[in-house]
Amino acid sequence: MEHRVYNFSAGPAALPLPVLESAQKELLNFGGCGMSVMELSHRSKTFRGIYNAAVEDLRTLMDIPENYRILFLQGGGTLRFSMVPLNLMVQGKADYILSGAWSEKAWEEGRKFGSAQVIASSRDIQFTDLPDLSSLPIREDADYVYICENETIHGTAYAGLPDTKGKPFVSDQSSMFLSKPCKVSDYGLIFAGVQKNVGPAGMAVVIIREDLIRKDPDPAIPTYLRYDVHSRADSMYNTPNCWSIYLCGKVFRYLLDQGGLSAMETRNREKAKFLYDYLDSSRLFHGIAQRSHRSLMNIPFTSGFSLLDSRVIQRCREAGLVELTGHRSLGGLRASLYNAMPLEGVKALVACLESFEKELPQEGISCGS
Amino acid sequence: MEHRVYNFSAGPAALPLPVLESAQKELLNFGGCGMSVMELSHRSKTFRGIYNAAVEDLRTLMDIPENYRILFLQGGGTLRFSMVPLNLMVQGKADYILSGAWSEKAWEEGRKFGSAQVIASSRDIQFTDLPDLSSLPIREDADYVYICENETIHGTAYAGLPDTKGKPFVSDQSSMFLSKPCKVSDYGLIFAGVQKNVGPAGMAVVIIREDLIRKDPDPAIPTYLRYDVHSRADSMYNTPNCWSIYLCGKVFRYLLDQGGLSAMETRNREKAKFLYDYLDSSRLFHGIAQRSHRSLMNIPFTSGFSLLDSRVIQRCREAGLVELTGHRSLGGLRASLYNAMPLEGVKALVACLESFEKELPQEGISCGS
Repeated sequence: MEHRVYNFSAGPAALPLPVLESAQKELLNFGGCGMSVMELSHRSKTFRGIYNAAVEDLRTLMDIPENYRILFLQGGGTLRFSMVPLNLMVQGKADYILSGAWSEKAWEEGRKFGSAQVIASSRDIQFTDLPDLSSLPIREDADYVYICENETIHGTAYAGLPDTKGKPFVSDQSSMFLSKPCKVSDYGLIFAGVQKNVGPAGMAVVIIREDLIRKDPDPAIPTYLRYDVHSRADSMYNTPNCWSIYLCGKVFRYLLDQGGLSAMETRNREKAKFLYDYLDSSRLFHGIAQRSHRSLMNIPFTSGFSLLDSRVIQRCREAGLVELTGHRSLGGLRASLYNAMPLEGVKALVACLESFEKELPQEGISCGS
Repeated sequence: MEHRVYNFSAGPAALPLPVLESAQKELLNFGGCGMSVMELSHRSKTFRGIYNAAVEDLRTLMDIPENYRILFLQGGGTLRFSMVPLNLMVQGKADYILSGAWSEKAWEEGRKFGSAQVIASSRDIQFTDLPDLSSLPIREDADYVYICENETIHGTAYAGLPDTKGKPFVSDQSSMFLSKPCKVSDYGLIFAGVQKNVGPAGMAVVIIREDLIRKDPDPAIPTYLRYDVHSRADSMYNTPNCWSIYLCGKVFRYLLDQGGLSAMETRNREKAKFLYDYLDSSRLFHGIAQRSHRSLMNIPFTSGFSLLDSRVIQRCREAGLVELTGHRSLGGLRASLYNAMPLEGVKALVACLESFEKELPQEGISCGS
């Protein structure tokens, strides 16, 4: 194998090397069946074994109660933005918490299908912090409360969950899925595009409480957008993204072997602390998100000077530290430290930032605003 | 590499071995970039190069005119069944030709969104043949005429295209896409789930004439289901199935290197003829579809005796000829001879069927009905 880089992309993102090596080894012939997983009928026993193992391992990994269904669906988070209101808006009302670009997109989609009301928002401060969730004006007849728990672009994450007053809680966990333990019974529905912290792009995991799957949804809902259809068919109403299910299954197994989600949280906290500690002590760089709600996964930062940011991104790239360019709406840099990023990668990044900082003339530098 | 089998699955199905070998070789490190294609940001230059090459090679392969857009979308054929009427039913009317399970599903989905009228059907003969298309009662104000050109389950395919009287012609080509030359300008929209004759499951190719992409579709259409959204964003409105785009791109390039679609048609005709000639001469087996409309891709056949069918399927499996069980609705056997199936595989299948036939007591055997 030639030299591999440290990939800080926000998604699609780095995958665990042992998982990739295993997929490579069996690419032409899975388990002696004489075919690639890409060539297996989704109705075959061999693929069914792959599918069942993935579902069971995810259930173990997240300790998902029996009254929740696990679905593997196509269309990413974006198609979930439509499916959630189409299926869950029984009374036509849902309350949304806006904390960034992704929750805003979900809300805009929700508005197409009913009364989607914003009950908390930090848009007025350009989503640099999270809204206050201490006293949410949740409507009596709201069908659900919607949140995005980790905003990939703004690098924010909630410390705790709000009181939804008994309403089903719907969470987009795309950029923090499987990064730490999650009490699934607190939720009505969890979804995550897998391309950030789990597997290859083109699939989303949906974990839905069974009683929220309507048996008689509006017949005008496009068939592929019905949870009942996918639930009845075990995610095989039509041909699923078999390759992504296979790779995600390998990642679930890898995470279990690594000690599960508690172990991942410990490692992720250590990694994020290493970078945040540097940013907090640096005279050149500073984190963009408010300290109280910093994400462990996505860390946007900047020198405040776009020229310096560009130069350090280039320096990092030359050192094999790639995909550090910040999102176009924020500028600066962004380091995504998903499960597959080892501590060594974060140390290499900090070393590169430090050396860049030291080489600059020390006078006249202060944190950009 | 261990022994590989001949895979006759109807989809997901066999892929060309050189394509799989190439994907295996660069799985950990694509083109020296230090990452797997599965880890590449879809916004990166490297992935953009993969995407652009795939689009350009497909345009060359099918000789797609400049006024057609090529889209790579998630959700398989099933989501297309919804997208087509949602986007193309401007006047709320569409005329459907029913020739099997897939066109029937598409029609049932179309009925949700407008007046979807059946203008030809062979349901009364259980879809064992195709309906007559010589004089279709196409409505004056129909928005499009819908067809499924090759029915995977029933093993039927049209010899020629109908006169749609100027109406946009929408075709599901899933199980014969890229199996022979196609005059794209005859169509308004072509789609194909890639998992049959192109690449790994979880994606569909859509080829749509630009003037059919409405700039102001009904705002209540779920965003992911709008052609204008995907067209404006070059299939990257959200994260696409990058791995499937990459593999499909390799298959497009492979087909060009093999001589393009004319060469594929020659090979596919030779392969299908080899099996049909045997079936027509066999005293034990016979093809299920009517001779006049036999598919080159999917060939269902039977001895007429389920016990014998089961035994020969088992015999074939032992000889490394797999996935020959017929669709549950038809029984018997089905051999799918997509581009990636070599003539050697078909010869091995016929040899196995012949030896099975010869070993049976010759008296009392006649073609089952």
